[in-house]
Amino acid sequence: MDLASLTTPCALVDRARVERNTSRMSERMRALGVRMRPHVKTHKCVEAARLQVRGHFGGITVSTLAEAAFFAAAGFRDITYAFPLAIPAIARAAAVARAVEHLHVLVDQDVVVTALEAYAAEHAAAAANPHAARFSVFLKLDCGYHRAGVDPASPDAVRLAERLARSPAIDFRGVLAHAGHSYDCRDADAIRTVARSERDVTVAFAERLRRRGIAAPEVSIGSTPTMSLATDLAGVTEVRPGNYVFYDAFQAAIGSCTLEDAAFSVLTTIVGQYPEQNKLIVDAGALALSKDPGATHVDPDCGFGVVFTADGSRQLQELHVASLSQEHGQVHGSRPLRFGDYPVGSRLRIVPNHSCLAAALYDRYHVVDAGRVIQEWRPTHGW
Amino acid sequence: MDLASLTTPCALVDRARVERNTSRMSERMRALGVRMRPHVKTHKCVEAARLQVRGHFGGITVSTLAEAAFFAAAGFRDITYAFPLAIPAIARAAAVARAVEHLHVLVDQDVVVTALEAYAAEHAAAAANPHAARFSVFLKLDCGYHRAGVDPASPDAVRLAERLARSPAIDFRGVLAHAGHSYDCRDADAIRTVARSERDVTVAFAERLRRRGIAAPEVSIGSTPTMSLATDLAGVTEVRPGNYVFYDAFQAAIGSCTLEDAAFSVLTTIVGQYPEQNKLIVDAGALALSKDPGATHVDPDCGFGVVFTADGSRQLQELHVASLSQEHGQVHGSRPLRFGDYPVGSRLRIVPNHSCLAAALYDRYHVVDAGRVIQEWRPTHGW
Repeated sequence: MDLASLTTPCALVDRARVERNTSRMSERMRALGVRMRPHVKTHKCVEAARLQVRGHFGGITVSTLAEAAFFAAAGFRDITYAFPLAIPAIARAAAVARAVEHLHVLVDQDVVVTALEAYAAEHAAAAANPHAARFSVFLKLDCGYHRAGVDPASPDAVRLAERLARSPAIDFRGVLAHAGHSYDCRDADAIRTVARSERDVTVAFAERLRRRGIAAPEVSIGSTPTMSLATDLAGVTEVRPGNYVFYDAFQAAIGSCTLEDAAFSVLTTIVGQYPEQNKLIVDAGALALSKDPGATHVDPDCGFGVVFTADGSRQLQELHVASLSQEHGQVHGSRPLRFGDYPVGSRLRIVPNHSCLAAALYDRYHVVDAGRVIQEWRPTHGW
Repeated sequence: MDLASLTTPCALVDRARVERNTSRMSERMRALGVRMRPHVKTHKCVEAARLQVRGHFGGITVSTLAEAAFFAAAGFRDITYAFPLAIPAIARAAAVARAVEHLHVLVDQDVVVTALEAYAAEHAAAAANPHAARFSVFLKLDCGYHRAGVDPASPDAVRLAERLARSPAIDFRGVLAHAGHSYDCRDADAIRTVARSERDVTVAFAERLRRRGIAAPEVSIGSTPTMSLATDLAGVTEVRPGNYVFYDAFQAAIGSCTLEDAAFSVLTTIVGQYPEQNKLIVDAGALALSKDPGATHVDPDCGFGVVFTADGSRQLQELHVASLSQEHGQVHGSRPLRFGDYPVGSRLRIVPNHSCLAAALYDRYHVVDAGRVIQEWRPTHGW
């Protein structure tokens, strides 16, 4: 199928770049001696997940229980649900756990441990499989991002790990952290510094537990920026980057990748020229690109994506995605535009700021190779 | 069904508020002597659209051709597609037009008129219905928003209207404007000023056309802020507000409504307490609330929504939705929180900044009345 026959706006996935991004990360991690348990939340589709796990043990990471159930149904057997387990979601998590070999959850709250123990006590006797209500649990550690997780410096962190390790209802896997603060970086050197700290803090905490006699077999870390640039992962057992499958304008701005690595883009049609305002209107608005503001700490005027020619071959630096309403994208000229270059009805390609949020707006991705649509991938959605 | 049994995050629609919002707008417009052609883009579901058109002629406004096809299939017969028609979308628009009594499109570019004429010339002879390729067209006017539309002060505006009126391929309906700049207002008085200008500019332009002998039967305007507060619509024939069905935190901040009118909210679960950071983590992130920054011109620190108790009865002003990542919402205390008030596993309700963008993230809305889920509404999506 030809790109020209697609209805816009629509989501394009560059097959060759996904292959390259996934192979490169997979090889990097093999060279660094860690297992890949890639995150699938960016694309939420089976085809991309299969490319991510090639050459590794097959485990994946998900951000919702809907993803966990979807990937379990597609045959993935070892899944980490990397979002703090909600108490009302315990029964749903247990149902998914019964459908796979391993479902690992993460916890940083005492009351959730109590709730897991209560659930296990209530269900262990009744279950056909005595292990069905025994949860595989990571302790979520705050390695500097300060979103969720226990502070490794606090006495509570060790106490909670001890509680998890000793609980008969729980199979304690180890520690898990996410260096989301790598997204605050402005360049590759800064990302490498965060990567070192992510490893150091998490491995040091696991070693502290081991010195106290707490078995913490797994040390799981990994954001896309840090895993794209880390050079030493000694002591880490597995990593969970996800965005790297697609990368995006944000990752390129902070130095995780280049724009040539961006595998997800939105094809859009120019619906109007407004020469008196030196701008175009395109049919990619907030529902096509998401309203993620992008790496404004690197470029305050970054707009809502990076514009390319429709075939993706050439960046159009004079075009700036200045604002988005629900369906309208306003593309301003950063210098006086030659409007003959941008006929009404012709198309552009926009690499969004944040591919995770933009991809989630689509019910299908058109997978493109050598200018042709060769496949259609269908992501899951919801919770 | 009980609210407590819902999986979070999920979308709640307050049935009584939707009834009140739609009745109130409908009565306002009847009192002002204009037809309602409500926009359905905020909710994209049949049930809410039926409430919107009660007591009016049944016409609706849509923002995508996917909506047009969806509502046509549900029995809506008179639809305005209020997005600049893309040239590659003409054939799809014509297909929808054949399925309804009236599909009106809007145009502000000469080349689109040329393309419509070419399409009509190519298809009129072949079509079983000779009117099938004759398009019903509004001229899109810029009434001050400066997004799309012709400048009413420019000679080109009259020239394009004349061209539309004289084209044998086109049934020229009149002029259509959208006062999106009402969203820049800071209070109700400012909105009323924009409302007067929206009416004045658009009616004056239609009268100018009529003085030149151009029949412009319709004058169509209407944003939710202006239609919520306009007191004079003389000369306007129909209006197209849409967001008022749900309203949202943005509309309340600028004075279109109060927070008690907000009919769309997101039910979320508290998954963690972090007393040392005086914050909670909830399971409503960017994919549950959208990343619309809200009315930052009214309150730079507005956050990503307004937090209520789970039953929606009481605003929790001390809770501030400070940041969103894909699935995590960080809810900070604006004063030291008493964490016993917010147990892990308990729930909150968040009215998002922009209900149009948040609602589009859900495949179903749980319609709530008197604390019970009484219906499930299914919106359409995509393009």
